[in-house]
Amino acid sequence: MTHALPPIEAIANPDLEARLRHKIDHKTKPLGALGALEGLALQLGLIQQQENISLREPQMVVFAADHGVAAEGVSAYPQAVTVQMVANMLAGGAAINVFARQHGFALQVVDAGVAADLPAHPQLLQRKIAHGTKNLCLEPAMSRDQAQAALTAGREIVQALPGNVMAFGEMGIANTSAAALLLVRLAGVSLADATGRGTGLSDQQLAHKQAVLQRALARQPRAREPLDALGVLSEVGGFEIAMMAGAMLQAASERRVVLVDGFIAGAAALLAHALVPQVHNYLVFCHRSAERGHRLLLDHLKARPLLELDLRLGEGTGALLAWPLVQSAAGFLNEMASFESAGVSEKEST
Amino acid sequence: MTHALPPIEAIANPDLEARLRHKIDHKTKPLGALGALEGLALQLGLIQQQENISLREPQMVVFAADHGVAAEGVSAYPQAVTVQMVANMLAGGAAINVFARQHGFALQVVDAGVAADLPAHPQLLQRKIAHGTKNLCLEPAMSRDQAQAALTAGREIVQALPGNVMAFGEMGIANTSAAALLLVRLAGVSLADATGRGTGLSDQQLAHKQAVLQRALARQPRAREPLDALGVLSEVGGFEIAMMAGAMLQAASERRVVLVDGFIAGAAALLAHALVPQVHNYLVFCHRSAERGHRLLLDHLKARPLLELDLRLGEGTGALLAWPLVQSAAGFLNEMASFESAGVSEKEST
Repeated sequence: MTHALPPIEAIANPDLEARLRHKIDHKTKPLGALGALEGLALQLGLIQQQENISLREPQMVVFAADHGVAAEGVSAYPQAVTVQMVANMLAGGAAINVFARQHGFALQVVDAGVAADLPAHPQLLQRKIAHGTKNLCLEPAMSRDQAQAALTAGREIVQALPGNVMAFGEMGIANTSAAALLLVRLAGVSLADATGRGTGLSDQQLAHKQAVLQRALARQPRAREPLDALGVLSEVGGFEIAMMAGAMLQAASERRVVLVDGFIAGAAALLAHALVPQVHNYLVFCHRSAERGHRLLLDHLKARPLLELDLRLGEGTGALLAWPLVQSAAGFLNEMASFESAGVSEKEST
Repeated sequence: MTHALPPIEAIANPDLEARLRHKIDHKTKPLGALGALEGLALQLGLIQQQENISLREPQMVVFAADHGVAAEGVSAYPQAVTVQMVANMLAGGAAINVFARQHGFALQVVDAGVAADLPAHPQLLQRKIAHGTKNLCLEPAMSRDQAQAALTAGREIVQALPGNVMAFGEMGIANTSAAALLLVRLAGVSLADATGRGTGLSDQQLAHKQAVLQRALARQPRAREPLDALGVLSEVGGFEIAMMAGAMLQAASERRVVLVDGFIAGAAALLAHALVPQVHNYLVFCHRSAERGHRLLLDHLKARPLLELDLRLGEGTGALLAWPLVQSAAGFLNEMASFESAGVSEKEST
């Protein structure tokens, strides 16, 4: 695979859109009564270029990597937890395993750059770029070549998987720091608004995290126009975010539905969007997390998420929790009767 | 069955609650990271009086009835739609059928008081109290005996069904009018705040609906202390709301989990709560609808719903859309590894 980013088709299709809207509006329900599911059904129809939706072999890929900035004490948990949680996922004990089993998702874990060597496992894909990123406080998190290699690895992973629905998750101690900086650099959000409590920082720890990230920003070259998204990625990392962004771009280029999880996955979507804006059409934003910057991230992407449950776990959990709503959107479009077919009276003229 | 309301046990159990909280807090995730699902898991454990949740044979019961006040032109749809939609549900073409099939719910439709005689059908329970309520603008919607009979019918229906999860839906043209008046009378909400667009009224139609309901309120005897919930019910109706309230009370008395749908089901919950406050412990509030008064209704019941998708369809659809989240709450409690069992480091002390 070359490093060139994949072309992504726009989904706009006025004729199909009109037919989908007509179909949705003539189902046996008041106009608009299925709320957010109606827009979702329209999006699914446009992605799949048809009036009946078929969702096949959904895949969950969890990208794991470490972050050099963890050395600055920006997380409530020690870096070793990345490896331990990968082992937990491979043993089937993490939240993402529970929800993947519930919803019939195949689950793969990718070593995108964990700071330790992981033993082989049938569900583990070895795509380690390096043993964690560098400390972004002191130097760029990764080289441009590494950033490019991570994007490409994400694309190749998706290429090899079946199905037309992809959900992506992540595991990486300190990765809300990288995500916060992506939000600052790619969406122009202030550092104070972008920085949150992650896995559960105290007020004092949050202030420390902000100070660390402020130092990182002061070290980096100023933002340039046009925005150099690959340069920003190499400055702040991380490998799991880069690989997820590549995976999103590939999935969209193949017209697969992409389920976007929380703050970290949102940062990957932001990065993917900065690289190829058309990716947006294929993204289903699954939830808004409790992490401070997530609302602003979603606002920047003009995204309205399906769930708002104060989740802040990552792993892809929010994506899988929202999945049944995607199935419901497809289900009502495919299966509900129309006013005409059911012999139900339409609304009285006003 | 006598007309006496069933006793409902409080679910408070400090010892079990402590064990459940310990179990939830030691799962391999940051403290509180599963957000609203954690409180839900606790509620499920307290309802079932155990640390592992078992959800069996979930049932959806849709109560259908007509409202005399429909004659005043308070709905965007003609009254005949109640019968037509019952037929649509029995033919499997309504939204609730799609979602019941998706989630494996057995579906029953109850004729609680439809204004026409319905042909027999294996999925239709005949419990008609009358051919629709009276016009509440002119006289009480039903007699106290009818109100009592409807509550009892709802209880008997639940008693005869298997499983430990009950979801309730409704169909009844003009039933947002009855629900709005229940909200006014039982929760002290102003008529302007309680009255919404239902299935899609224009501004002018909404003003007309408010004027009609204002006339109804002016006709009714003033609220008394202590509140006579049965009296309020008989004044405003409807049969489907009364039967659903009885069903909720019975389900709670048998320690079943009760999934509460939108505005109409919320009004039934309000009524059930006014009759036997302990019912509250067994109710899972599934969504907040687009109907104006629903937020105030939920505030009054101190309920935080799981979904907010701008639904306004009724039928029980919002309850079934939220159901996978209930399963996920049970799933993480039952299946996730603990920090100890998975060998994952806990949070660093702060």
